[in-house]
Amino acid sequence: MEDNCIFCKIARGDIPSATLYEDETLRVILDLGPASKGHALIIPKTHAANLFELPDEIVEKVFVAAKRIATQLKEGLHADGLNLVQNNGAAAGQTVDHFHIHLIPRYENDMVGITWKPGNLSEADKEDILKLFR
Amino acid sequence: MEDNCIFCKIARGDIPSATLYEDETLRVILDLGPASKGHALIIPKTHAANLFELPDEIVEKVFVAAKRIATQLKEGLHADGLNLVQNNGAAAGQTVDHFHIHLIPRYENDMVGITWKPGNLSEADKEDILKLFR
Repeated sequence: MEDNCIFCKIARGDIPSATLYEDETLRVILDLGPASKGHALIIPKTHAANLFELPDEIVEKVFVAAKRIATQLKEGLHADGLNLVQNNGAAAGQTVDHFHIHLIPRYENDMVGITWKPGNLSEADKEDILKLFR
Repeated sequence: MEDNCIFCKIARGDIPSATLYEDETLRVILDLGPASKGHALIIPKTHAANLFELPDEIVEKVFVAAKRIATQLKEGLHADGLNLVQNNGAAAGQTVDHFHIHLIPRYENDMVGITWKPGNLSEADKEDILKLFR
């Protein structure tokens, strides 16, 4: 638990939230600034700033919970699809430095627009990246 | 294995790809239309159309692998952040109906723009959604 971390306080119940699910590892709440109806957040109770710092055994639990909650949201809200988005670092749009997963139900023509412009994979970039993994 | 699934063929090596990592469960490749330098895909070898259909034990493995590969990409490419995005359904931008995770390294001012416009959580929506989980 980090003293000044708002998601630590929410996950542990020190700050009230619209909670969909809670267990010993995590809490699932509704986002107060939803991209769409049903936008939820999976927040582990253990503090980790991001995916890089989250222990593997908690990675397993939060994403299995994400699958289950995503299914309930999609079915319950009759959504047409769902984005799972997990941002790491301010450059990636992360605004609270406590790991969290966004579950964003999607509806035909909802204009939510979580997308990107595809580029081209150059031979030079491909070689640069492949050599990191050799 | 689905006969006409291109990601089944890529995951199993029947179609060549720029592979960063492979084990018995999954393959990690470079996206041919990258949003940013290092954009990679985690593809399980088992066919499942989306997160809803992916068995829990594979969910655990693909996301633990995502953490490890994300760390290698961020460090190797000196990225400033990274988005993990996993789309389910055409309405959510899914273009190949075989579960996959996008890892998108992010760089200051890269204009990739994976984001959304925050709305407001109305009391009516909140009640609608909370009652699905009671």
